[in-house]
Amino acid sequence: MRQIHLNAFDMACVGHIQQGMWTHPRDRSAEYDTLGAWTRLAQTLERGLIDGLFLADVLGAYDVYGGTPDAALRHAVQVPLLDPMMLVPAMAAVTQHLGFGVTVNLAYEQPFTFARRMSTLDQLTGGRIGWNIVTGYLDSAARAMGFTNQMAHDDRYDLADEFMYAVYALWEHSWDETAVQRQPGQFTDPAQVRRVVHNGAQYRFDAMALVAPTPQRTPVLYQAGSSDRGRVFAGQHAECVFVNGGSKMAVARLVADLRARAAPRPIRVFVGATPVLARTTAEAQALLAEYRAHSSTEGALAHAAASLGIDFARYDWDQPVDASPTEAIRSNVESMTRQLGAGWTKRMLADRFILGSRQPPVVGSPAEVADELQAWVAEADVDGFNLSRTVAPECWEAVVDLLVPELQNRGVYKTAYAPGTYREKLFAAGPRLAPPHPAALARAS
Amino acid sequence: MRQIHLNAFDMACVGHIQQGMWTHPRDRSAEYDTLGAWTRLAQTLERGLIDGLFLADVLGAYDVYGGTPDAALRHAVQVPLLDPMMLVPAMAAVTQHLGFGVTVNLAYEQPFTFARRMSTLDQLTGGRIGWNIVTGYLDSAARAMGFTNQMAHDDRYDLADEFMYAVYALWEHSWDETAVQRQPGQFTDPAQVRRVVHNGAQYRFDAMALVAPTPQRTPVLYQAGSSDRGRVFAGQHAECVFVNGGSKMAVARLVADLRARAAPRPIRVFVGATPVLARTTAEAQALLAEYRAHSSTEGALAHAAASLGIDFARYDWDQPVDASPTEAIRSNVESMTRQLGAGWTKRMLADRFILGSRQPPVVGSPAEVADELQAWVAEADVDGFNLSRTVAPECWEAVVDLLVPELQNRGVYKTAYAPGTYREKLFAAGPRLAPPHPAALARAS
Repeated sequence: MRQIHLNAFDMACVGHIQQGMWTHPRDRSAEYDTLGAWTRLAQTLERGLIDGLFLADVLGAYDVYGGTPDAALRHAVQVPLLDPMMLVPAMAAVTQHLGFGVTVNLAYEQPFTFARRMSTLDQLTGGRIGWNIVTGYLDSAARAMGFTNQMAHDDRYDLADEFMYAVYALWEHSWDETAVQRQPGQFTDPAQVRRVVHNGAQYRFDAMALVAPTPQRTPVLYQAGSSDRGRVFAGQHAECVFVNGGSKMAVARLVADLRARAAPRPIRVFVGATPVLARTTAEAQALLAEYRAHSSTEGALAHAAASLGIDFARYDWDQPVDASPTEAIRSNVESMTRQLGAGWTKRMLADRFILGSRQPPVVGSPAEVADELQAWVAEADVDGFNLSRTVAPECWEAVVDLLVPELQNRGVYKTAYAPGTYREKLFAAGPRLAPPHPAALARAS
Repeated sequence: MRQIHLNAFDMACVGHIQQGMWTHPRDRSAEYDTLGAWTRLAQTLERGLIDGLFLADVLGAYDVYGGTPDAALRHAVQVPLLDPMMLVPAMAAVTQHLGFGVTVNLAYEQPFTFARRMSTLDQLTGGRIGWNIVTGYLDSAARAMGFTNQMAHDDRYDLADEFMYAVYALWEHSWDETAVQRQPGQFTDPAQVRRVVHNGAQYRFDAMALVAPTPQRTPVLYQAGSSDRGRVFAGQHAECVFVNGGSKMAVARLVADLRARAAPRPIRVFVGATPVLARTTAEAQALLAEYRAHSSTEGALAHAAASLGIDFARYDWDQPVDASPTEAIRSNVESMTRQLGAGWTKRMLADRFILGSRQPPVVGSPAEVADELQAWVAEADVDGFNLSRTVAPECWEAVVDLLVPELQNRGVYKTAYAPGTYREKLFAAGPRLAPPHPAALARAS
């Protein structure tokens, strides 16, 4: 039976995708700013043999709705927000197998310092780090970093391409596999370490990497763009792709396209899903109603406004939204129009974004939710799911205690972690990227 | 009795200041790349009520000696090297009181992303983070970041000044103390959050901080420059100053100058020291001989060459070194000439740098070492010591098990941690910087 991979999809903030849940009396998401909340989460996920914790990030506030960040602040919509990389070492210290996929926007990083930070995490986690490559889409983030506005969409991917080759050289080319010898008089053999000289359009540097080869060298590469240019990038670089939105049929077309672009490299495709799980259908429906009663419509609209580049504060509830977004987030709007139909309204959108992860929640008993996930695998050819949280931590406990055993009983979920690094666990292959991936081609030995 | 503060001074690499110790059979510094080594160290230090772990960092390789990084690589002189910030969350998770002073070179950071990273650490550690502000001195680091060489020394401090005001605004001005309300409909009060608009010579941005007020807001500020311009900077910004090199009398003059510049703000001054401790004088002398037998002269010279900007590979052992360094590290060379006298040679330098932390090791029984530390406090008016490692972890165990009890018996060392944040512990005052410090003046509420 084809195995299903599960990631927990979370963010170092109060409201990630489901807005308002922090007002639920059992919710503890406002503890996002304590180490204990994250180490407990990691241990829960590892108990459920969850493949990885996928951490979102964004570098600006959501200020499109009403032209201010006020709604985002009021409803704790991804603000306040911590740096997700800093959560990983503490979680790694209390787990042995859980992978970590951390979102970092490369547009505001320098290759040399970023490469060292990622290498440090790969080393300290024993090869359990992944990187969700993003180039950003918020003007507010661009302004925070000293630019007047966001780069054009396709230019961002050109920048990203160059950045990738720069960090591949640092991760794969600078140190030979056997450079560290640990023999008296020769801790490292200098003949096996070389400088990387990069003279590109966007980046220039001349340096040897400071970190010796780590278990995976290049972290597991995640990517989530579904635009034309985004798919070209994914085909070249991504090992895992996170897709969102649309029917199974629409996702199936996207998945087929992504696999064709990556071939002959295998890729793992994860689709977003928000399970609302209980022992029985009736209990799950009751839970959904309870969660909905705590959801924040204004928070959801503030989030959607930024994702789509449309100020919903200007629209009436049932007025068709004039969806002519900037080029930067066109693919998000197109995806929304595919899901809601032409002439969609703010009301339709608010319904969709609440408990939705841009898709309707998957509500039901363990068997019903498992059926739906298996249907996605069968019909859309996805490899797994990025599961969003609702009321935490009970939503994670439900996944671990109800869904995972159901999937195991069906023979579609592992009963123990595979050995090795995150990459080995995901692909049942080696710890390092293999040709024809460009990171492997950058390797000197 | 005046209390003595102790920091452990370490670095995420094999050879920090004492080169070659990794070849000693009891040394475990080659485990620098495991989380367990750091969590064990943190627990040992907290057992000894050590104030903080001060982590050095550098962004380039030492390639002045012989014009290549070969000697640094062979002897593991601060390379390979991990990102020190990533060590903190794991250590914080297993301790409650230990402070962390992390070196970050601001010259290659953007204020917005750096401020968020530091705020995240302040939040996750419960207010136990400090920042050792450096502007770098290595051409190799500048080239790694895309510059052709290092900025001029005083220009770096002008850049640093502007950077500090930028991050103060993000840490202190952007969010009011009571902005986070955690009430339904109002997690954060938007009226209490404001954008920082910075239009400086070096940095421009327009953003609200993403992190809510953390326990200390601004981390405890360490600084180590002793040049004229460095002292001006320290007088304005530093709360703790790390001084190195020279006689007690010379350090006393430097300390008096620093205190005068900072007044009326109190500062804590730490001087570097390398204890070689055992139960008896004879055992300590035997230990020193044992450590010296494992020390690496070439490693020490590779380190010194970079610190002083002088290629010692070109000199005979007893030839006076022509010390005309670049402006960037002039103060280091002047300090060395004060210590060794005019016409100093490579041989004198190698003797000094081995087991030296730029000062002779403090060797002896607990009583002898305590006498010497108290003499430093009495004669040089320092507040404490940054203790370098020799053979680890036994050197830390000796500090905790032998030196600390001796100091406690003399009434000059705490018998329990003070409550509160790192700043409260160090200054017995509030968790936030107070006026007239410019960070406090930046605060909006």
